[in-house]
Formats: sequence, C-alpha cells, structure tokens
Amino acid sequence: MTYNLESFYFTLNMYDLRRMNVMSEITPFRLLISREKAVETVLDAVKPVDRVELVQIEMAANRVLAKNIVANMDVPPFDRAAMDGYAVRAEDTYGASEFSPKTLRLVGVLRAGESTNKSIGRGECMRIATGCPIPPGADAIVMAEFAEESKDGNTVSIFKAVHPLENISPKGEDLKKGEVVLREGDILSPAKIGVLAALGLRRAPVYQKPRIAIIPTGIEIRELGFKLAEGQVYDINSYTLASLLIENGALVTRAPIVPDNREDLKNALYRFLNHDLIVFSGGSSVGERDMLADIIEEEGKLLFHGVQIKPGKPTLFGIVRGKPVLGMPGYPASCLSNAYIFLVPMVRKMARLPPKKPTIIRAKMARRFVSASGREQFLPVKIIDGKAYPVFKKSGDITSLSKADGYVILPVNLDVIEEGEEVSVTLFE
Amino acid sequence: MTYNLESFYFTLNMYDLRRMNVMSEITPFRLLISREKAVETVLDAVKPVDRVELVQIEMAANRVLAKNIVANMDVPPFDRAAMDGYAVRAEDTYGASEFSPKTLRLVGVLRAGESTNKSIGRGECMRIATGCPIPPGADAIVMAEFAEESKDGNTVSIFKAVHPLENISPKGEDLKKGEVVLREGDILSPAKIGVLAALGLRRAPVYQKPRIAIIPTGIEIRELGFKLAEGQVYDINSYTLASLLIENGALVTRAPIVPDNREDLKNALYRFLNHDLIVFSGGSSVGERDMLADIIEEEGKLLFHGVQIKPGKPTLFGIVRGKPVLGMPGYPASCLSNAYIFLVPMVRKMARLPPKKPTIIRAKMARRFVSASGREQFLPVKIIDGKAYPVFKKSGDITSLSKADGYVILPVNLDVIEEGEEVSVTLFE
Repeated sequence: MTYNLESFYFTLNMYDLRRMNVMSEITPFRLLISREKAVETVLDAVKPVDRVELVQIEMAANRVLAKNIVANMDVPPFDRAAMDGYAVRAEDTYGASEFSPKTLRLVGVLRAGESTNKSIGRGECMRIATGCPIPPGADAIVMAEFAEESKDGNTVSIFKAVHPLENISPKGEDLKKGEVVLREGDILSPAKIGVLAALGLRRAPVYQKPRIAIIPTGIEIRELGFKLAEGQVYDINSYTLASLLIENGALVTRAPIVPDNREDLKNALYRFLNHDLIVFSGGSSVGERDMLADIIEEEGKLLFHGVQIKPGKPTLFGIVRGKPVLGMPGYPASCLSNAYIFLVPMVRKMARLPPKKPTIIRAKMARRFVSASGREQFLPVKIIDGKAYPVFKKSGDITSLSKADGYVILPVNLDVIEEGEEVSVTLFE
Repeated sequence: MTYNLESFYFTLNMYDLRRMNVMSEITPFRLLISREKAVETVLDAVKPVDRVELVQIEMAANRVLAKNIVANMDVPPFDRAAMDGYAVRAEDTYGASEFSPKTLRLVGVLRAGESTNKSIGRGECMRIATGCPIPPGADAIVMAEFAEESKDGNTVSIFKAVHPLENISPKGEDLKKGEVVLREGDILSPAKIGVLAALGLRRAPVYQKPRIAIIPTGIEIRELGFKLAEGQVYDINSYTLASLLIENGALVTRAPIVPDNREDLKNALYRFLNHDLIVFSGGSSVGERDMLADIIEEEGKLLFHGVQIKPGKPTLFGIVRGKPVLGMPGYPASCLSNAYIFLVPMVRKMARLPPKKPTIIRAKMARRFVSASGREQFLPVKIIDGKAYPVFKKSGDITSLSKADGYVILPVNLDVIEEGEEVSVTLFE
C-alpha cells in the first residue's frame, strides 16, 4: 500500500480525532503540560508549614528551627582553665625559663568539678584541672608540662612565662548571653544540637513536619496480608510513596483503600482535607483518573491533568478548599517515578528542607534505546562497570525501578539514543 | 640568651622527660597512634549486627534486608490488560487498517476490578479496562484509540492489527514465583519496598540497628534543664553524639551522667555491656580519661589511648568482655569531630550500611592558618563565596563546629597553610 502525503495527513487527523472522541466519551480532552511547567505549578501551590512544635533535642536532627535561639547565659558560664596545670598571676611568671624557673607557693588543688573562693596572692599558685573556674586573683594557667611540684608539695617551679589570659577560656567565649546563636530556618545538625545543649535546653522549637495523606484507590487493589481474589493485586503505591515521603521529612497518613467511584473518592478527599497535602495513589484505568479530575474541578480548581512525560502522563493536580491535591498514575513504576519528579520537591518545600541535591553521574548507554513517545522519557537504568543499562520494562512493573540505580531523563524531541552515547544518570540513593 | 645546638637538644629532652614524668604521675605514658591506624583498629574490632527483626514495610526505608526474599506468587498474578481497549483474538485483526477496519461482535465489558469466565470466540471482542484479567480465548488488546463502537453497542470497528500478546502483561512478568527478588544485604529503597508490597508482605525481615550506649561522664557535667551550680556546665556531648549516631542507623541509649571516679565508671561500663558498643563521652581532664583507660586495661584490653590528631588526642579504645568501648575527648568540638572520624564508620559497619560518601569540595583558604601541633589537624571551615574560612576557636567551643560547613584535615607534617592555597573540604550536611 502506498500513501501520498495528503492521505497520510488525513490518516493522522483521523487518529487524532478518534483519540479526542474516545477520550471525550470518558473525559474532556485536556492538553498535556511540560514537566518543567508542572513542577513549577505544584511548587507554586504549596506553602512551607508554619506550625511549630517542641521536640527533644536528641530527636531533632535534620529538623528545621522555627525561632531564633538567643543565648540565655554565657558559655562557658565562668572563666575556666583550658588546660590541666597551675593557676597563677601571670606577672609572677615573667622571665621564667627552663634555666631560671620561678618558684611559687602551692596554696591548693582544684580537681574536676571543684571551685574555690580562695584568692591567689602574689607568688602563689593553685593546681587546677581543665574546666575548673579560675580562682580569684589568678589570670593565667601554666600548663602542667612546664611546671614541677616540689617533693613536699609546698612549692611549684614554673619553667615558662605565661601572659595574662593564657590558657584561660573566658566566660562567654563560646556563646555570649543575649547573642543570637542559631537562626530560624537553620537545619539542626549534631553541632547545632550541641549549641542547644550548651544552653541547657532540652527541647527545640521546630516546624512541624508536613502532614500528607496518601489515599490508595481502585476496586482491584487489595490490602497487604489479605488473600487476593481473581483480578486483584496488592496495593503497592501507598507503600512506595509513604517511605519516600517519610525520608523527605513528611508525616504520612495512609488511608484505607478507596473504591473508585465518585461518592467514595469525594468522601475520602473531604475526610483527609485536614492534611497539608492529599495524594491519591491512583487507579490504573482512564476512567478512575478522570473521576478524580472531575471531582477536583467541581469542588475546587484543577491546575493540570496530564504531563508530557513517560511514564506518568495521567498525573493531575489541583486545589480544593485551599489544599493541594495530587493524583498519581496507578501503575507502580509510573507512580514512583512521578513521585521523584513532583512529590519530593513539593514535600521538601513544605518541610522547609533545601531541594535534594541528587548525585548525577555520566555514563555511556550500554545499548540502543528507542523513545518515540513524543514525551520526555523517565528511563530507569542500572549502572554496571560505568555503563547505563535500561531496566525499564512496563509502567506496571515495580521491578522497573527496584532494579535500577538511577534514571535518565530523555528529552521530548529525542527518538533514539544510541549505544555508547553519554547520558546523565541521577542516582536514587 | 643564646642556645647552642647541644643545650637546645638538652632543653628538648628535659621537656620531654618532664612531660613523661608529669603524665606518669597521673597516667602511664602511651604512644599516640595515627588516625589511619586508629580507624583501622576500631573497624577491625566491630562486627555487623546479626540480630533480625520484622519491621512494617512503610517504616523499613534504609533498613538492611536480613534474608533473601523469594517471590511467593506471580506478579501480576494473571495475564492482564496493559491498556484500556478491547480484548480480541489477534488473528481476527490481521489486515485491519484505517481504511479497511475489521468488525467484531462486542460480547461484554470488563470494568476495573472485574473478571470473567466468558470466553471470547472467533469474531468476538470484549471492552476491557487496564489491569483486568484477560478473558479466556483472547490473546491481545486493541487500544481504545484504534477501535470504535457502533451506535447500538453491538459491534466494534478495529482499525489496527495486533499481534498475539500485544498490550498484555503476562502473569509473572514483573515477579516470577520462586525467583529471588530481593537479596540479603539489600538496603530497602522505596522501589524495593514496592516489591515487598507487590508480594503482599506487610513486614520485612531486617537486621536490627546496633544498640549503642552513650555514657556522659564528669563531676562538673550537669543534666539539661537543671540549674548550674558554680563550676558546672551542661552535658553537650551525649546529645551531639546521640543525634549523629541516630542519623547513621544506630539505636541510642543515653545513660545518666556518671561522676568520674573508678567505682562509678566501672559500674556504668558493666551496666551497659549489654549494648553493641559503649561510648564514654568523656571527661575533660587528663585524670578522668586515664581512669577509664585503666579500667579497660584491667577488665579487658586497651587497644589504643591517644591519636595523632588535633583536636582529639585523648581518644581511647578497647574491648571489655567482647564489647568495644570507646572513650571520647571531653571537649565538645573534640568529641564531635572525633565522632565523625571514628564513630560514624564504626556504626555504619555495625548497621551494615555502606561507608558514608561525603561531599568533598575544593576551596581556597581565605586566610593563613598555622598548625604546629605535630599532629594531623581537623580544621572546621565555613565556606563563603567558594573560600574556606577557618572557624575553629577552642576544642571546648561547640561553636567551632556549629558554625562550620565542613572540615579540612591538614597533614601531620604541615605547619602552615597559606592564604589562597587550595584545600579539600569535607562537607558536614
């Protein structure tokens, strides 16, 4: 059969018209938007969480501080010895050397945890442990290595001069009372937690984690641990999404599975609107997805339905009563790959965490890959000996992702990527 | 005063002798070992935890699988439709095209979650939703876009031929019954958690987290939330260590503060020997640290006491009744920087997590830094406009680390690093 140019165009148009027709029976036709535009839309729509809670500091690592922390005291709270040695009046040591030591009277000993009111007078010294408050009158510490006690313990020979304040950590040197020592927005590292501890604070004011509801949908989806009936499969998406979201700073509520009918979907949406974000983990058929789109359109505003990426075209997003609602594709590999693209950035913004800096490596394609979808392609790959092997099977296959080390995003206009071509692989870890 | 070479040597020797002498009063003199040797020693001494526990899969991200997972079923559990469309016998569609469609009798509809025993005969087809089991007799799916139902709903025009198995996900395509789908030692990613869910498994067998006891010591150390008496400071180290260890996969028990006397230290050690690792978060004075060294030597084996790094010389390590015991420096900045060097690799080995791959950047020193300690130097730096500013104040100052973005390790034999010289900065994040 031969096609002339005209009939070829005609053919295309017929396909397009039929596709629009088929879809319009089940759903109004909608234009796909680009991935960049979709990411921008979801990020614009979500707000960082403002609610604050107090968290035990040892559990506060990677949480985001909600208030400036002003030092309520000086740290150290007193001038203290920075070395084991002898507290002296510095001027008594001037001129001391290995060959002409100065001799001071030993008037006491301060062991760890001890302090004294006893004053150090001219020509006197006191043995002192690191961390002890400097006794009145003394203004420097001679390190133990540069001093020698007499046999009777009455005097100490000083072999090295010290200047005033030498080997002393002055009060407030580390943290000064009234100073802002940590700032709102700081992510609490172990060292910053140490600053809170230094001030005696047991709990830190941090922003609450965003509360995200995951609602698995689909009449064919079964709860884990139950026996499958004919035609049923286990719920995968709510578990992959939950673990990914928890890792990225969210608090997740997993709803029971909702059958894909309007009434139940709408009830579930309203039941979980007390969350900061509602994610439907998606039915696999067109009908189910469009039901959700219709509900969002009726109850709020649908911002997009359909993204120009493969897999993941059916992703949809809208706002209902001020709350962002995301509908994910039902197929496990599509759902999870779209979660990396859309959900992770949203959640991190809500949690006030910086965007994830993924590790990106360059690798050569181990074999030719054809991508003629007319959309961007999210291509999971396994890295073996520095080469990228595509592992994508079907959107429905979770092993498309579980066996992958990372993914490549192939541009819309790329149909074929040849063996040996270099690609940028974003690693999952 | 002038020194000739001989007296200079003599002087040095006198210092060394006195230092040995002073230390031997309080502690037997011990040789410092290199950082590399110390890390090797601690890593040799700890074992990965063998105990196994079952964890809910949504909480199992980043846990380490303790057993191979063999698929207990096929996934999908039946041949299913990969597209919305029409289940057909492929041979009935051969030759179909846009211009000469084939017409088939529509004998039924399968909506999501439905299945049927009804067989598809010659010249017949059934409308089918993605994910439904393929009805008996059918061997391919024609996508909805390439088919059109008649007005009366009795027939369907097929505009494109399909080959057998087209648009069908065969039973077991994703996971095959009996196949090892995840392996012992795998770190559970969201996608691997999806594999467990696909098999209906609610819980995963994972290795337990290493149980680590942190014992803060020092008579001068006070619990957070209490009022400080003269000479006291708050416990910082147990909190910085706890948060760092939790981040790296440990389960932490924080002991109450132990006064630094032999009896209490020894009791605390034995009380917490039921842990996989015991960490003393360190007294600040020489006496305290040596008491712990003596106890380890008497009760077990002391493997090193003193590391050639600044800060952190007093770090010690040994084995008591088969359990590794680590003594950390008392000063907060020393303690935490040594934890990054020694504790994190130990804990990750125990938790069976891969060594941390830190982000290392190159930066130019913003100013000259003198490091004449004769030891390696762990130098915290802040990065501003690509330049590295040393922020180290004193080992006692937690702000030495809380204000740093990362650290540089300066070699033993380096005394001065000049402004503008390039260094490798390991980022904390």
